[in-house]
Amino acid sequence: MSKQTQIDQILEELKNFIEPKRLLTQLEDLVSFSYDASFGVYLPEIVVQPTSTDEVQKLMKLANKYKVPVYPRGQGTSLSGGPLPVKGGMVLDFSQWDQKLEIYPDDLIAVVSPGVLTSDINAAANEYGLMYPPDPSSSNVSTIGGNLAENAGGPRGLKYGVTKDYVIGLEAVTPEGEIFRTGGRTVKNVTGYDLTKLIVGSEGTLAVITEAILRLFPKPPATKTLMAIFNDIVDSGRAISKVLSSGILPSKMELMDQASVVAVENYQPLGLPTDIEAILLIELDGHPQAIEEEIVKVEQICKEVGAREVKVSRNEEEALQLWKARKLVSPAIARIKPTKISEDATVPRSKIPEMFKRLKEIKNKYQIDLVVFGHAGDGNLHPNIIADQRDVEEMKRVEKAVEEIFAAAVELGGTLSGEHGIGTMKAPFLEMELGKVGIEMMKRIKQSWDPNNILNPGKIFPEEGQRFVLRSE
Amino acid sequence: MSKQTQIDQILEELKNFIEPKRLLTQLEDLVSFSYDASFGVYLPEIVVQPTSTDEVQKLMKLANKYKVPVYPRGQGTSLSGGPLPVKGGMVLDFSQWDQKLEIYPDDLIAVVSPGVLTSDINAAANEYGLMYPPDPSSSNVSTIGGNLAENAGGPRGLKYGVTKDYVIGLEAVTPEGEIFRTGGRTVKNVTGYDLTKLIVGSEGTLAVITEAILRLFPKPPATKTLMAIFNDIVDSGRAISKVLSSGILPSKMELMDQASVVAVENYQPLGLPTDIEAILLIELDGHPQAIEEEIVKVEQICKEVGAREVKVSRNEEEALQLWKARKLVSPAIARIKPTKISEDATVPRSKIPEMFKRLKEIKNKYQIDLVVFGHAGDGNLHPNIIADQRDVEEMKRVEKAVEEIFAAAVELGGTLSGEHGIGTMKAPFLEMELGKVGIEMMKRIKQSWDPNNILNPGKIFPEEGQRFVLRSE
Repeated sequence: MSKQTQIDQILEELKNFIEPKRLLTQLEDLVSFSYDASFGVYLPEIVVQPTSTDEVQKLMKLANKYKVPVYPRGQGTSLSGGPLPVKGGMVLDFSQWDQKLEIYPDDLIAVVSPGVLTSDINAAANEYGLMYPPDPSSSNVSTIGGNLAENAGGPRGLKYGVTKDYVIGLEAVTPEGEIFRTGGRTVKNVTGYDLTKLIVGSEGTLAVITEAILRLFPKPPATKTLMAIFNDIVDSGRAISKVLSSGILPSKMELMDQASVVAVENYQPLGLPTDIEAILLIELDGHPQAIEEEIVKVEQICKEVGAREVKVSRNEEEALQLWKARKLVSPAIARIKPTKISEDATVPRSKIPEMFKRLKEIKNKYQIDLVVFGHAGDGNLHPNIIADQRDVEEMKRVEKAVEEIFAAAVELGGTLSGEHGIGTMKAPFLEMELGKVGIEMMKRIKQSWDPNNILNPGKIFPEEGQRFVLRSE
Repeated sequence: MSKQTQIDQILEELKNFIEPKRLLTQLEDLVSFSYDASFGVYLPEIVVQPTSTDEVQKLMKLANKYKVPVYPRGQGTSLSGGPLPVKGGMVLDFSQWDQKLEIYPDDLIAVVSPGVLTSDINAAANEYGLMYPPDPSSSNVSTIGGNLAENAGGPRGLKYGVTKDYVIGLEAVTPEGEIFRTGGRTVKNVTGYDLTKLIVGSEGTLAVITEAILRLFPKPPATKTLMAIFNDIVDSGRAISKVLSSGILPSKMELMDQASVVAVENYQPLGLPTDIEAILLIELDGHPQAIEEEIVKVEQICKEVGAREVKVSRNEEEALQLWKARKLVSPAIARIKPTKISEDATVPRSKIPEMFKRLKEIKNKYQIDLVVFGHAGDGNLHPNIIADQRDVEEMKRVEKAVEEIFAAAVELGGTLSGEHGIGTMKAPFLEMELGKVGIEMMKRIKQSWDPNNILNPGKIFPEEGQRFVLRSE
């Protein structure tokens, strides 16, 4: 059977249970689902927008019948290629399935459908004095389904953990089209293997999530922000360690290096000094009196380890002003050159100063534009390389630099990815971190669940001889 | 080859890499490893006490060569039969492997070998102003290896979560004898599938844990305890809900029902009123001023919903006095009759009052001695049935009552097990909660990792026609 005939047959069957407006096959529609926020463009053959578990089940059975790849997708904000339809086939666009967003304040849980935007969950929880802590920077535009697939992080991860820490139950469809539930509505549950936490973060390769039960937390009554400016970036690393071992657990500890600050000042001047090596932004949350006292302690620690200047917000408005710089880093650096390679290599906290040293060496060695900012408090830095994709020579240098960044992170006892996922981008480096046995045990799970390799194929696991390439060769 | 010949051959090979004193074959030694804190006695053929990863690897390869079952074991405090050698073979006793207990305060982590006692980890962390939050009631005598296998909980689970929430990396040996590492020293890590959280809580059926990397938290500077006494148990449930939705997250919320209080007063009189239906014990931790203010709010809430009396500790000594009652429940009820069936069926928080009603009905229907206490704040109650194993008629009623308790928990949206595990005890009820597909997906993982079914066989998954029996038939 030719590929086109097969696609036509699948379409015929799809029309039996999907309304026409949620079944896209026109080129102009398909193009919208051919990319995400990472690299590469891959055209799917069909895009389906399911809005029920029953539809997903039928879709998966159909895909298995015709052995056609299925690519689940939220809003396509992935930085690692999670939803890219690298082998064509069907994209399941979940962005239309945002109908269910239920808060159960007595149980401290939310029940949501996969297309709900992450920030909407937090907003709904806020109405009951609760919060949904995970706060990836894309939370205003990304779906909870995508966050679940990638186990999204965010600044508040330092104190509150990541998406996975808030998922206690799922409804999902297996790659072969069977519906099942994992976990439930209780925080404690040790009945059988923890399929919930296996599926969350599996990048859409093990099951299609159709509903999630999320834990909520009481919203802390107050927050307070401090900005500390350092002439020496190593001192900022010492400040982080000292604060964390002083008994204080901030809700956020974000860092901007000199290049980030310079980029922001060039983009939208805030009056920050540019002759410095690092700025730390620290947020405390909790009881008002407690954080009032703690912020004084944090200020002292920063000064003791050599901060040149420390500013403490006196009110919400001042706090927003201090955070503005951090929020502007991404748009500011995007202006420098058209191509931004955003990494999330993560190291143990104590290795942050050493990682800074390595990054500086790599920057000099390959003569690249490297900007470092991110969630320094949990070792989850974001080294961003700014380049121009049309400059082949530059891109070759960038590829080598990225390889060395990964190697440095793993060598320092860290990981390739703290929160973006492996996707297509980091698959070639997987063995460096996991070893042959680690990959083998993961593959056994994948093969036993998805014998036809239908669900999100081409992700996480490197293909034979796959290399890291940012250019179209 | 006869079974004895096979055992003799295995012993010969074991002598090549295990010193004689850590290789036990005498009946009097084997007997010590034939039971745990649940039901049933099963004699192993060999007990080995490994103290290195290399030894575990060789052991697993040997076990696969001879297709002999392997049963990892900590201190044998399991309430669900986790370490019971139900099919004979080899017990791997990890209690001697307690050499490694390293605290890295800058990284907020501990690295431990499997035989370390759980409370020793917390004590070592305390020296750096840190804590290891999970606190199963067995923590003074149970090993971290056993806690990892079962994903142990405890009272602090309400605020701090369970064992799994604190494990960020493992070294483990596959059922076929390959060494691998999962996760690492960073809190954020999304490289590949989360094998760490799959192995933790898999009850020793998927891999043998040889080292663990655990997260530590800053130790809160102060705690405060409150005891609230209720004439109506339903009011105590309302108090729990109201406190949790008021923005306060206590570190512990423990409940004792009337039968628990009566048992304690008969065992060691503390002057508690016995004409009541429930006592709540609530602990707050955090900043001293913050909890000083919060405890007033908790007191108000308890009184508003109808508490007959509320006592607040003024100092550490008074707090210990209030907690004494809770600590005495287990020894007190053990005196009533010789056999204690300790369950951990867990329901969503909002269903606690309904669960109390169901438990009362079950108690009356089967005329059993039922005592209810436990971690009410997260819905993780401990219905304990007190009986005499020699009374066959009574045990039959107990078996039926336990079945109904499980059914009630699942019907109310809860789970068979909040923190004890499935083991041998609850396997017959697995399908009730997970459904056929859920079990099938778990079995696929087990089969793909352990094709010879060597590692802890006879646990979690029910055997054909397996029924729940507490009697020796």
